[in-house]
Amino acid sequence: MTNPINLKEKTLSSEMICEGKMLRVKRETVELPDGSQSYREFILHPGASVMVPILPDGKVVLVRQYRHPMKMEFYELPAGKLDEGESPLETAKRELVEEIGYEGKEFEFVSEFHPCIGYADEKMWLYLVTGLSKSEKNTDNDEFLENIYIDFEEAVRWVHEGKITDTKSMLGILLAEKKLKDNLNG
Amino acid sequence: MTNPINLKEKTLSSEMICEGKMLRVKRETVELPDGSQSYREFILHPGASVMVPILPDGKVVLVRQYRHPMKMEFYELPAGKLDEGESPLETAKRELVEEIGYEGKEFEFVSEFHPCIGYADEKMWLYLVTGLSKSEKNTDNDEFLENIYIDFEEAVRWVHEGKITDTKSMLGILLAEKKLKDNLNG
Repeated sequence: MTNPINLKEKTLSSEMICEGKMLRVKRETVELPDGSQSYREFILHPGASVMVPILPDGKVVLVRQYRHPMKMEFYELPAGKLDEGESPLETAKRELVEEIGYEGKEFEFVSEFHPCIGYADEKMWLYLVTGLSKSEKNTDNDEFLENIYIDFEEAVRWVHEGKITDTKSMLGILLAEKKLKDNLNG
Repeated sequence: MTNPINLKEKTLSSEMICEGKMLRVKRETVELPDGSQSYREFILHPGASVMVPILPDGKVVLVRQYRHPMKMEFYELPAGKLDEGESPLETAKRELVEEIGYEGKEFEFVSEFHPCIGYADEKMWLYLVTGLSKSEKNTDNDEFLENIYIDFEEAVRWVHEGKITDTKSMLGILLAEKKLKDNLNG
C-alpha cells in the first residue's frame, strides 16, 4: 500500500481582517503541500449545540425563525452558540430553555460535526433530549422564535420533502431517527 | 387558529465590511418584528453543488481534503462553488471532473439545503451521479485532494460512527441512501 498523500498546510502568518459586531474573520498565509503559498480566510466561531427535544407524546419541538442572510424563514432544531468556558452539554441545557422554554432531563449525545469547513472553524454537538418540562422562555433581545410541535415521523418527512432545508436540522433529525431506532432495539 | 407570529426583519441599510481575498462580509441594519433595530452580518456566497458519485461496483468516491479552518483532514463528498452564470447542474458536472477525475452520465437531483443560515447566504444542491467514466483530474492550483473509494454502505457507517464529520457530506450520504432505496422500490 502506498503512503497517503501529504495534504497538510503549514500556517506561515495570521491576521484578523474583519472585526464586525457579530463576525470575526481571520486570514492565514499557508504553505501548501507542494511548497507554494496561498491564503485561507475563515470565520472564528465558538461552536454550537443542537438539540432534538422529544416530548412524552412523541412530538419534536422545532423553532420557526427568520434568517436574515437568506431573507426567509426556516424550521429548525433549537440550537445556540457556546458561551465562554461553557461545555457543549451546558450550552444545550441553557439554550433549550432560552429558545423553546423547556427544561430537559436526559441529554443523550448523538454526534458532532462541522457545518462549514470551507470558511468557518465552527463545530456542532448534537443531543437527543427527553424528560422535558415547561419552563420560562427567555430568548435573546434580537431573537424572535416560534415553537412548532410536530410528530417526529412528520419531521423526518419534512426533511425528505424539502420543507426543512437548514442543514444542521436535516442532519440532526436523520441522526436522531437512527439513534431512536437503535435505542428501541436496545 | 391564531395567525403565525410575524418574524420578518426589514433591511434598513447595507454595507460591505470585509472584502478579503476569498471572503466577503456584508453588514445589514435591520428592523426587528418589535420595531427595534439590530445588525446582521453574513458571508456572501455564490452557492455550491455537492455530488454523490456511485461507481458501477457500488463504491462511492469521496475525497480526502485538509481544511485549514479546522486544521484537520476530512472525508468529504466532492463539491464545488458555482461559477458566475452557471447552473447548479453545470457546476456538478464540471466539479466532478475537476475534483475526482470522473465524468458522470446521469445526474439525479436529490435535495437542496442551506449549510450555514446563521452567517452565510450559501445554498447547496445535491446530486446522485451514476454512469461514471474516468477522465482527466483537474483541480484548482491551491487544492490538494485524494480520491477515496469505499462501498456506499461503508460510507453510511462512517457517518454514524463519526468518521465523516463534514455536515454536507453526512447529510448528502444519508439523503442519497434514502433516494437509492426509493429508486430500488421503484
